[in-house]
Amino acid sequence: MPSKSQTQLIRSLSQKKYRLQHRLFVVEGEKSVLEFLASDLRLHAIYTTESHSLPANIEAEKVSQQQMQTMSQLKTPPGLLAVFHIPTPDTDLPTKGVHLVLDQVSDPGNLGTIIRLADWYGIQSIYCSSDTVDAYNPKSVQASMGSLARVQPTYTDLIEMLQTTSLPVFGAFLHGTSIYAQDFPEDMLLIVGSESHGISSKVLQYCSQNITIPRAATSQAESLNVTVATAAIVSHIFAKRLG
Amino acid sequence: MPSKSQTQLIRSLSQKKYRLQHRLFVVEGEKSVLEFLASDLRLHAIYTTESHSLPANIEAEKVSQQQMQTMSQLKTPPGLLAVFHIPTPDTDLPTKGVHLVLDQVSDPGNLGTIIRLADWYGIQSIYCSSDTVDAYNPKSVQASMGSLARVQPTYTDLIEMLQTTSLPVFGAFLHGTSIYAQDFPEDMLLIVGSESHGISSKVLQYCSQNITIPRAATSQAESLNVTVATAAIVSHIFAKRLG
Repeated sequence: MPSKSQTQLIRSLSQKKYRLQHRLFVVEGEKSVLEFLASDLRLHAIYTTESHSLPANIEAEKVSQQQMQTMSQLKTPPGLLAVFHIPTPDTDLPTKGVHLVLDQVSDPGNLGTIIRLADWYGIQSIYCSSDTVDAYNPKSVQASMGSLARVQPTYTDLIEMLQTTSLPVFGAFLHGTSIYAQDFPEDMLLIVGSESHGISSKVLQYCSQNITIPRAATSQAESLNVTVATAAIVSHIFAKRLG
Repeated sequence: MPSKSQTQLIRSLSQKKYRLQHRLFVVEGEKSVLEFLASDLRLHAIYTTESHSLPANIEAEKVSQQQMQTMSQLKTPPGLLAVFHIPTPDTDLPTKGVHLVLDQVSDPGNLGTIIRLADWYGIQSIYCSSDTVDAYNPKSVQASMGSLARVQPTYTDLIEMLQTTSLPVFGAFLHGTSIYAQDFPEDMLLIVGSESHGISSKVLQYCSQNITIPRAATSQAESLNVTVATAAIVSHIFAKRLG
């Protein structure tokens, strides 16, 4: 049985402050927990309720329904909860491949969905501005559908990174070269900005190429959701490689 | 001042049952309300709190903070709330252009995001299976960011529609022809399925072509978010037209 202080600690991990302090985060539900167990991430603890039937390949410490309710970040706890160590971010600058750069993305669901998209297309790294929402936020972990086990964003000073990178930097804007008319190189960075304001003024000066998703001539839509925009661009970048 | 029964009626519109019964739905916040006012949709009522300062081009009936709290579907009401009539769906079968068909999409945020995407690319119609989530759900209205003012899904019996259509039917699957190797015709239907189960077995037999978004050879991701998948495919369908 976990101690009261242990259940309280796990409960506190719903807040970014405590995730950063303890360098721990929570994963719930069999499917996600299995993905994280199969990854390189280091397990801190794993709990299941007495009534929950686990698959043969998972061992977990038994807890009462009430203890699970204390630790869980979900209204209806799925009965299996694991705590993993947040990995130490890779600070090497990329020189090969396609990499995503997120400038102030604020919705955790959007971030998790972008991590899942990156995992699908084999994008190995995502660099986030320090004020991008935390990827270990429960909503982001959930939206990533296990992909966070394989693609872990690096939070960094984007200006410093963009000043140093040798890769061409493509920025997603509402105006620019049509992605459909653009040839994308093998090795590149793609920056996407926040849901409300796009790429910030500090960052946009480092874009070597402004690109846009053209809209229909008759369209009155003002913008696209950030995950949808990222998907449309990433899909087009990989079209030739995966075709 | 609205009567108590009027505020109660508006409150009830958070539930699908009452939206269908009254054929009314709620839009909140200046930006969205303005988009709907500029559309062809018929206004039923519009309210603002006494403390809220409205732009000159909007007239609204004043209500107390408490009345707004009763009517609003948001924790923090933005102070402007409009009620519109749900339009009568267009039941004509499309014969030209690209149209979306949604089979059992269940998350209102996903539906709203797809409506916004359709609006961007100039997709004029979206056909939804009767068990697809209601587009006039508050979360869907919000995620559509005003695009629901221009693109209104038609709920219909998909089987009947697919049996009758003269258009080629492309279905999005986890296996099929790569979208990057596929030539898409000018006029077509694109079916996407539910978040958990994809296209249902009843519907898949009507797909004349199964298409897929190829993943990286090294990828271990199981699937993509339905809005991300729709964005990647729609982007590719329109690449040549918008390039």
